[in-house]
Amino acid sequence: MKKLSSNTLNHLRDRIHIIIEGTDTPLGKLFDIVLLIAIAASVAVVMLDSVLYLRLQFGTVFFYAEWFFTILFTIEYLLRLFSAPNRVRYVFSFFGVVDLLSVLPSYLSLIFGGVQYLIVVRILRILRVFRVLKLKSYMQQAGFLAAALRTSQQKITVFFLSLVLLVMIFGSVIYVVEGPENGFTSIPVSIYWATVTLTTVGYGDMSPKTPLGQFIATMVMMTGYSIIAVPTGIFTSELAKSMRPQLHPVTCPNCGKFGHAAGAQFCDRCGHDLHI
Amino acid sequence: MKKLSSNTLNHLRDRIHIIIEGTDTPLGKLFDIVLLIAIAASVAVVMLDSVLYLRLQFGTVFFYAEWFFTILFTIEYLLRLFSAPNRVRYVFSFFGVVDLLSVLPSYLSLIFGGVQYLIVVRILRILRVFRVLKLKSYMQQAGFLAAALRTSQQKITVFFLSLVLLVMIFGSVIYVVEGPENGFTSIPVSIYWATVTLTTVGYGDMSPKTPLGQFIATMVMMTGYSIIAVPTGIFTSELAKSMRPQLHPVTCPNCGKFGHAAGAQFCDRCGHDLHI
Amino acid sequence: MKKLSSNTLNHLRDRIHIIIEGTDTPLGKLFDIVLLIAIAASVAVVMLDSVLYLRLQFGTVFFYAEWFFTILFTIEYLLRLFSAPNRVRYVFSFFGVVDLLSVLPSYLSLIFGGVQYLIVVRILRILRVFRVLKLKSYMQQAGFLAAALRTSQQKITVFFLSLVLLVMIFGSVIYVVEGPENGFTSIPVSIYWATVTLTTVGYGDMSPKTPLGQFIATMVMMTGYSIIAVPTGIFTSELAKSMRPQLHPVTCPNCGKFGHAAGAQFCDRCGHDLHI
Amino acid sequence: MKKLSSNTLNHLRDRIHIIIEGTDTPLGKLFDIVLLIAIAASVAVVMLDSVLYLRLQFGTVFFYAEWFFTILFTIEYLLRLFSAPNRVRYVFSFFGVVDLLSVLPSYLSLIFGGVQYLIVVRILRILRVFRVLKLKSYMQQAGFLAAALRTSQQKITVFFLSLVLLVMIFGSVIYVVEGPENGFTSIPVSIYWATVTLTTVGYGDMSPKTPLGQFIATMVMMTGYSIIAVPTGIFTSELAKSMRPQLHPVTCPNCGKFGHAAGAQFCDRCGHDLHI
Repeated sequence: MKKLSSNTLNHLRDRIHIIIEGTDTPLGKLFDIVLLIAIAASVAVVMLDSVLYLRLQFGTVFFYAEWFFTILFTIEYLLRLFSAPNRVRYVFSFFGVVDLLSVLPSYLSLIFGGVQYLIVVRILRILRVFRVLKLKSYMQQAGFLAAALRTSQQKITVFFLSLVLLVMIFGSVIYVVEGPENGFTSIPVSIYWATVTLTTVGYGDMSPKTPLGQFIATMVMMTGYSIIAVPTGIFTSELAKSMRPQLHPVTCPNCGKFGHAAGAQFCDRCGHDLHI
Repeated sequence: MKKLSSNTLNHLRDRIHIIIEGTDTPLGKLFDIVLLIAIAASVAVVMLDSVLYLRLQFGTVFFYAEWFFTILFTIEYLLRLFSAPNRVRYVFSFFGVVDLLSVLPSYLSLIFGGVQYLIVVRILRILRVFRVLKLKSYMQQAGFLAAALRTSQQKITVFFLSLVLLVMIFGSVIYVVEGPENGFTSIPVSIYWATVTLTTVGYGDMSPKTPLGQFIATMVMMTGYSIIAVPTGIFTSELAKSMRPQLHPVTCPNCGKFGHAAGAQFCDRCGHDLHI
Repeated sequence: MKKLSSNTLNHLRDRIHIIIEGTDTPLGKLFDIVLLIAIAASVAVVMLDSVLYLRLQFGTVFFYAEWFFTILFTIEYLLRLFSAPNRVRYVFSFFGVVDLLSVLPSYLSLIFGGVQYLIVVRILRILRVFRVLKLKSYMQQAGFLAAALRTSQQKITVFFLSLVLLVMIFGSVIYVVEGPENGFTSIPVSIYWATVTLTTVGYGDMSPKTPLGQFIATMVMMTGYSIIAVPTGIFTSELAKSMRPQLHPVTCPNCGKFGHAAGAQFCDRCGHDLHI
Repeated sequence: MKKLSSNTLNHLRDRIHIIIEGTDTPLGKLFDIVLLIAIAASVAVVMLDSVLYLRLQFGTVFFYAEWFFTILFTIEYLLRLFSAPNRVRYVFSFFGVVDLLSVLPSYLSLIFGGVQYLIVVRILRILRVFRVLKLKSYMQQAGFLAAALRTSQQKITVFFLSLVLLVMIFGSVIYVVEGPENGFTSIPVSIYWATVTLTTVGYGDMSPKTPLGQFIATMVMMTGYSIIAVPTGIFTSELAKSMRPQLHPVTCPNCGKFGHAAGAQFCDRCGHDLHI
């Protein structure tokens, strides 16, 4: 009797798993669509709730909507936990943590009151849309991008370190040249200005007033305008390489030609069988 | 007698079609040039009409010019409709819709009065200049660009989705850190700021005041400055690939495999001589 | 007697030509260096003369310096004209025009008084520094860049036309949405704003105030941030192609291999003489 | 006895050298970590000391910390000098100069008082973090970047010269068009504006007010937006080339030609069999 019950439970577990994680069954597709709408709606509620005049008007609506989504996502979390093949692994996986973080703030707000910082945690729900985007071709394309980023990671680290040092040195120079009387009140603030200028953002909340300061600013801008070529060059080269078809390292037993196209069965120089 | 008349009509239709769509005959070229000037002039009128002191001075001139161009484009639309080989298809084609939209607002303004929104529709006339640009070599180059965009579309979707999520998370973080007292009045407005900063536009209408906010802004700028490499890398790789010399268009006489590496003498699938 | 004089004149002409145009003789090198300094100094005078408090203090110094350089460049122009192998061609060449324009404003100011617009013409003298930069390797590198720009010219024209249309449509939309009450006083000014935003410059002299306007601005920024990939991709692909070593279109008379490395004398597949 | 003492000294010298320069021994690793922390802490002190309200509160703490780090780095400098295989070379090497400059300002401030300019020199200490980053793979990646920059140096010089000239001409044009009444008070300041606009920084401290000025600004922006493709294209092409698989390292047994195309069986210079 117990075994049968266990079987039924396992069967239920499998069914839930297929609906939640799969995309092939009609129910699985429906689940994904409903989840996507729920995520978007709950994030919209968090965002609109921060607009003062909307909160004054629809405050209670937002409050109940928030709790509705929290309970919905809690049920979903429990179902995922129940149906996961390896529960511990799920809880500590990236999406497991995101799933938990998307419901936790609401419960915490009951204890600690409406702490501001919980809003940011709530907005992380938006990361869950990547979950639904399980389409194979998209994942493959994202894989290409990730591979290019991974292989260029060391070059990019060198670039970033140089960028940080450049910004620190430029910031100190402008601090000495312009000084507090022109708004460059301290080195950290001047480094902030150097970053704003080097990255070509250019808010204009601080800008040099002295001729020498403007000349140095010109140097910073020209540098920023030019060295953007570096990360772009790194990433483009890596991506181009990862997308280029590689020759297979096969040697023809007859003529010795090394390197053949993927899928070649015969040598394209002498016609001998490659015996692959 | 009726048949002859029908023939004359068909003949007229063909002649008009050649003049309107063709670029080879002197009349066809003249038509294109006149149309180009008319489009530019009519768009200039719409633009200048929006400048207050010009409207006060030349208001009536603009009014009559607008109606002159409307009637001109209406005649052109009717001629195109008349001479089109497939009329229904023309009406619902991209340029058919644009052609109609470029005359409709003026007629609608008779009924509804000078509705503001009609101005935008009127300015869409400018899209019709692409019509005149029927030069073959330009179309081919545009085709290269379109092909590269199409094949990189999935990668770019992944990139855009990440961009939107990044902006939402950065916006929420800065909202919590800076708060309404520093101008970050709501999450939507803070997301607007994050977009302004990440894309390195940097209006400066909102800028962080607290040290922590300035540090986060520095992070957002550095991120924006670096990840511009991603769309550039994607597009460059795809464009380089679409411009790279393809496989040679040789068919194997034995197995029929089409496309072989440059210099291949034997089919690399069946080993048969390619007789090149 | 006359012939000899003509010979002497020709000899003088050749000597001057070698000094002015050549870079190999010590005198030729000295001439280049003196000219470079004179150009830089004369441009510096024009620039500093525009600073009010410097003009008040050193006005007469600048005045005499300007005439000193004008006379110097006039002598140089006459010498170039005298020593040019083909005088008409020199006068109408790019550098011939620039040389003339660099002395003309001073003489014209005698007739018309200190016309503002002559300043811009005077500053064009700076173009003459390219004259001195006759180093072979630099010219070759500039040639690479020019070749890449030339071959990508049609693609870039398509891109620019799209950019102009995009800016016009975005500008009209924001004009209707924001309107004169938020600073978007006319369509031309709104197009200016759209350009400032799309190119990620972002002065902040105009910025959207309404939520819908800020949303549209977000779209414009994202577009501008992404489509910068297009000109970069075009130019990079063309430059990479122009720098890639091409295979020579030679067929081996023995084995028929098509395409050999530059400078190859023998087929690298069968070892047969290529008879090039 | 003297010899032994000399031996002991040499032994000590070697041991210190291994600890300071090496990364393989536990003591060497510890030394690197301590140094990294000391550099970061000393730079943080210089930065925080420039913030007025922090200086008022912790001024004496910063003062003693500064002297603590100065003495620490002085000891380190003397140890490096003592253990260097070639002392003169070390003193005049890049890092030798940086090491000296990181302690000199504090001693100079004893003589000259707290001179502002010494702050910038002090912040150069941050360059010493590159010292610690001796990891082989990072150095190799940095080498790739440096190689690409070196080979593209001439192209980039041509680009920069064009950029400077462009900015000077655009600046002069806008000065004449807008004039001092709209904030463009002199040509140097207008060149500063042209740089701010061309590099897409866009502070907004100066912006054109007249329609013609705004049209010219639009041209400058479009130019800046497009020609960023040039340095990016240059660097990307060079980097891609430096990462591309090179010729195979095979020497012809007959004529000695080194480096042949992938798959070559015969030397393409003399036709001799390569025996691969």
